[in-house]
Amino acid sequence: MANQEVENLSVVVHGVQDLRLENRPVPNPGPNEVLLRMHSVGICGSDVHYWQQGRIGDFVVKKPMVLGHEASGTVVKVGSSVTHLKQGDRVAIEPGVPRETDEFCKTGRYNLSPTIFFCATPPDDGNLCRFYTHNANFCYKLPDNVTFEEGALIEPLSVGIHACRRAGVALGSKVFICGAGPIGLVSLLVAKAMGAAHIVICDLSASRLDKAKEVGADFTLQISRETPQQIAQKVEELLGCMPEITIECTGAESCIQTGIYATRSGGTLILVGLGPAMVNIPIVDAAVREVDIRGIFRYCNTWPMAISMLSSGRVNVAPLVTHRFPLEQALEAFETTRKGLGVKVMLKCDQSDQNP
Amino acid sequence: MANQEVENLSVVVHGVQDLRLENRPVPNPGPNEVLLRMHSVGICGSDVHYWQQGRIGDFVVKKPMVLGHEASGTVVKVGSSVTHLKQGDRVAIEPGVPRETDEFCKTGRYNLSPTIFFCATPPDDGNLCRFYTHNANFCYKLPDNVTFEEGALIEPLSVGIHACRRAGVALGSKVFICGAGPIGLVSLLVAKAMGAAHIVICDLSASRLDKAKEVGADFTLQISRETPQQIAQKVEELLGCMPEITIECTGAESCIQTGIYATRSGGTLILVGLGPAMVNIPIVDAAVREVDIRGIFRYCNTWPMAISMLSSGRVNVAPLVTHRFPLEQALEAFETTRKGLGVKVMLKCDQSDQNP
Amino acid sequence: MANQEVENLSVVVHGVQDLRLENRPVPNPGPNEVLLRMHSVGICGSDVHYWQQGRIGDFVVKKPMVLGHEASGTVVKVGSSVTHLKQGDRVAIEPGVPRETDEFCKTGRYNLSPTIFFCATPPDDGNLCRFYTHNANFCYKLPDNVTFEEGALIEPLSVGIHACRRAGVALGSKVFICGAGPIGLVSLLVAKAMGAAHIVICDLSASRLDKAKEVGADFTLQISRETPQQIAQKVEELLGCMPEITIECTGAESCIQTGIYATRSGGTLILVGLGPAMVNIPIVDAAVREVDIRGIFRYCNTWPMAISMLSSGRVNVAPLVTHRFPLEQALEAFETTRKGLGVKVMLKCDQSDQNP
Amino acid sequence: MANQEVENLSVVVHGVQDLRLENRPVPNPGPNEVLLRMHSVGICGSDVHYWQQGRIGDFVVKKPMVLGHEASGTVVKVGSSVTHLKQGDRVAIEPGVPRETDEFCKTGRYNLSPTIFFCATPPDDGNLCRFYTHNANFCYKLPDNVTFEEGALIEPLSVGIHACRRAGVALGSKVFICGAGPIGLVSLLVAKAMGAAHIVICDLSASRLDKAKEVGADFTLQISRETPQQIAQKVEELLGCMPEITIECTGAESCIQTGIYATRSGGTLILVGLGPAMVNIPIVDAAVREVDIRGIFRYCNTWPMAISMLSSGRVNVAPLVTHRFPLEQALEAFETTRKGLGVKVMLKCDQSDQNP
Repeated sequence: MANQEVENLSVVVHGVQDLRLENRPVPNPGPNEVLLRMHSVGICGSDVHYWQQGRIGDFVVKKPMVLGHEASGTVVKVGSSVTHLKQGDRVAIEPGVPRETDEFCKTGRYNLSPTIFFCATPPDDGNLCRFYTHNANFCYKLPDNVTFEEGALIEPLSVGIHACRRAGVALGSKVFICGAGPIGLVSLLVAKAMGAAHIVICDLSASRLDKAKEVGADFTLQISRETPQQIAQKVEELLGCMPEITIECTGAESCIQTGIYATRSGGTLILVGLGPAMVNIPIVDAAVREVDIRGIFRYCNTWPMAISMLSSGRVNVAPLVTHRFPLEQALEAFETTRKGLGVKVMLKCDQSDQNP
Repeated sequence: MANQEVENLSVVVHGVQDLRLENRPVPNPGPNEVLLRMHSVGICGSDVHYWQQGRIGDFVVKKPMVLGHEASGTVVKVGSSVTHLKQGDRVAIEPGVPRETDEFCKTGRYNLSPTIFFCATPPDDGNLCRFYTHNANFCYKLPDNVTFEEGALIEPLSVGIHACRRAGVALGSKVFICGAGPIGLVSLLVAKAMGAAHIVICDLSASRLDKAKEVGADFTLQISRETPQQIAQKVEELLGCMPEITIECTGAESCIQTGIYATRSGGTLILVGLGPAMVNIPIVDAAVREVDIRGIFRYCNTWPMAISMLSSGRVNVAPLVTHRFPLEQALEAFETTRKGLGVKVMLKCDQSDQNP
Repeated sequence: MANQEVENLSVVVHGVQDLRLENRPVPNPGPNEVLLRMHSVGICGSDVHYWQQGRIGDFVVKKPMVLGHEASGTVVKVGSSVTHLKQGDRVAIEPGVPRETDEFCKTGRYNLSPTIFFCATPPDDGNLCRFYTHNANFCYKLPDNVTFEEGALIEPLSVGIHACRRAGVALGSKVFICGAGPIGLVSLLVAKAMGAAHIVICDLSASRLDKAKEVGADFTLQISRETPQQIAQKVEELLGCMPEITIECTGAESCIQTGIYATRSGGTLILVGLGPAMVNIPIVDAAVREVDIRGIFRYCNTWPMAISMLSSGRVNVAPLVTHRFPLEQALEAFETTRKGLGVKVMLKCDQSDQNP
Repeated sequence: MANQEVENLSVVVHGVQDLRLENRPVPNPGPNEVLLRMHSVGICGSDVHYWQQGRIGDFVVKKPMVLGHEASGTVVKVGSSVTHLKQGDRVAIEPGVPRETDEFCKTGRYNLSPTIFFCATPPDDGNLCRFYTHNANFCYKLPDNVTFEEGALIEPLSVGIHACRRAGVALGSKVFICGAGPIGLVSLLVAKAMGAAHIVICDLSASRLDKAKEVGADFTLQISRETPQQIAQKVEELLGCMPEITIECTGAESCIQTGIYATRSGGTLILVGLGPAMVNIPIVDAAVREVDIRGIFRYCNTWPMAISMLSSGRVNVAPLVTHRFPLEQALEAFETTRKGLGVKVMLKCDQSDQNP
């Protein structure tokens, strides 16, 4: 492949509401990297946020940045010291790669490393493009029976895995999930795969709850003006007992409060959704009932188990993909996500293969 | 109910190969007990062992003892201080009840308490009879959609739960199970329910492996004269990697050795089967690869989660019941188990309801 | 002993600011109880609270209640089924006794059982008296080299043990403790005994910090008008890094906020102090840095390890006792605690032995 | 420093019983490495083993190899991408460095990585020399109040930390240690620092037990011809109960058997010592009492906590160093260790500073 001559169409955010499709050079892999021909890349809410707002918290788009971090592709070139991958391997990409072996990495919590590289978090470029290089140790070979789109969906699935793992979801767990957006749905899928017995999920939107029902929710609860205590009461009635675990995927203050009231003594409230920086919470109720409050930051150590799960057929993520666009129509795809249509919009980056 | 006039047909072992059906008085529940009309009671290998050998290790049948500890029934009378159960409740019975709140109980490992009462372990009577009293805190109400037989099967299922829990079976785990008898099968069911991705099970018997395939094994491996290292090698080939977890259900020395060789570094070998008291094992291989060796003694804290699982339909134990006999034909039923026919033989103790 | 003729002087709260010394009948032990001649009973902040306010949260003094729950004494009579204790045994008393073997008890978290009996929590009587009966399984024999006062101090020490255990204090941990009152001090003692390397403790009061220094704090930090962020910054400067663990013993909103800002990513904030029911906290900062927030409710499974520790000399609690009064001067003793003088006031209930 | 002109005296094993002091070139640090002027290096039993036998198990000395892996030194040059260390920093060296970020590394168990580099394990050179380069992420800066010798002793101390951590030593633990050699002693030191209440240590040698007493053993037990059961009985008598934890540091079959018999139900037997590959053990006794058997392979994540501990003064390792030799007298030093004299022999590699 003569890299210089190949186009590398990329989706680049230049600033607030300034999203462009442009050609970039095809990169060359370093010694421990692989060059990938990108196949399927999902659009995440954070991608839209950087496009619409130019920032998320302290992360500000100061120079043009390629978007995309839910991705899979094919190895087209391997760096000089790469041994476990070869040309033609189909891989899923873990977008976070620690730059330094610090104490977080050594103890297995590399997601907390302040040195981490992360696709499409300023200033690091993402992989919504034709060709992309990535650390080979964070590219995971896909078995033949796992599709590229499933590979790309491992990224959002990983959020659910990390949430459920930190929650301690176990055989027979009763679980309450707040919010039936993409993250609520993957948390639901994962909790069931871990053996959760009964799951209730709530949302404002009836259509989102229908989707939740479709992917396996035992109970759905459409809420409108109830107080946190009232919602907690309804959850208990639906389950026949208080859930040991609540997974909060909205970030709303009232939902965090609900999560504390709803969770059984000795249980765990997991915070996945992010909302206002400061929230008012019933801390004494949580403390004296030993309801632990644990947040998650992205994920770590999820790709291998996700691939095993997908390969075994234990988890079916296919229903999550509701829209597909070729890379050339990326702006239209982003517009679809911005409008909140469907669940997951997938961009197809490989012109020679637009299959799932 | 005038207890004195009611017959209480019971299956009683009097000594080696001396099993009798005889009438015993109907007991009266103490303040914290319930009187149960027994419905379904499974026959366990240990029941047959007490009948055939008169002992298991240090536990010796010195006086006539009622057999049976895999059981469910209906509450017919509640003790004076029982509040959570009432007449007519259908319950599953946890056969082990600690007599004293010692440190094992206080720390949640009551199965290790030396004071424990256990059905059909000498000198404690079991519940293979028409009427039986039990500590109300160890009787668990069954939901309407869980049958009596499923309730009785919670006992063997609990062995699988305790094994898989101590093994740390998790989402995506690769698991190797040695032995496809009843305990191997329940371990398989539970491991899958906990999210294990790929499971290989081995046995000498092709028919047992067929049953394992039927209840969900991903791979079966019929063994004959292979060395432990050879079996370990085959397991790795089938899975595409070494399993993180091995669950040994035979007790055979060669299988324990196989379990060590087969398990991935940092993994766990669970010993469920019991064989010779002393075995020769490759301890250095286990130690330097940090393969933990953990046994289990019965189980603790399994009934509530098992009921949740059965109620949610996550686990299907129905295929395990291959034979049914009315209580009056208990001797024939025991003979069936002794011959190793089928998987689980169920005795039906309630003359008015012989349904599952 | 002719119980009827013996006086049983008791410290009884009758309502708000109505504390009386009165004689009560000497009770008789039930089958699983022991009758104790009380020796040393510490006064807790909650005892003073019930006296001054007549309530703590939902727990309201509706009828006269004996105070006291930090206690030790001597067995003078054993119930019919007690086997592990005998007359003359010196024991420390765990004040919380579950009434029913529910799921919390079975899983080793009996402190969360809603059925629990707890000394001097309405409506349950405490043990600030001459003679008292208690469940024998919650009376722990003291070795000869552990004094009665050390035995009584196991109760506050248990709060520190439960806090440090839920915090995961480990060898080399850096720990920040907010508040140098009795609970801050016992947390300090326990954290050091568990291997914490460097501990910084903060308080408004210089004299409290002097005491903390005396019992082993590596660094003390007197605070006045600093913001939470400023205090967090000072803690980091003193330790040379952020602490993995913060133990919050004040309940103040600003201190909880400080605890979040101060704790290292991936660490734990333990809430021991209780303040306002609702607090405003920087939840996103906690969530995205995976700083877990865990409360504690009393303790469980602490007496045996506390006795081992005291017996081995690993922990020295003696400096905590700053005042002693004979039981007859209980009102003066309560006044001393109410004024916040010293650390721990000990009442001596045995007229024949007023030694520590 | 003109590297070419500087001598780099090194202790090199050339084959069985062929140990030589020879000059090697001073290496140049790679981008992520530091060049160190070695200060203190302890001699380990494995160093002597390679010298005397030319191999340990599958690790065979096939070409000349520098010995030494218990080491500390001073940074004299930093690689181009090193930021956290600078010239003049005093550091302790973790000898094991994974070469690839595989799943073991990502999950925090890098000691199990098959790709690991390890000082003085064939074919990797150790650091018993004047100048040595090492991965900067595995060099840990020593505070001013921690000596070079303490820094070198972190390596054996790490074995004790990893053993005690995998054992779950906790506040109040009762611990039995088999073998009072260097590893038994560091396990003892660490167990006490973690809060173990009472420790009994056994050995054949009275002088080793005297040393154990000196560094803090509560009880010592000199054994000769007792059976494993008899030793287990004596341990229980000394402690007043069975220990929750046994740390086996000899590798002898009879000691492993003793460890199983001696450990309390629900406890843990840790295998640190390595002996014959196959051993005969009472597996049923371990299994039915849920005594877990866990080996250790070296250690991971121990240097930072060890430095914290040493800096805080919680652990005193100074008594372990019984002999010191300048590097030039390395052969005499090795002879001292070979004869089993003292506990730890320290080689002083820096001609300008032979202080501890």
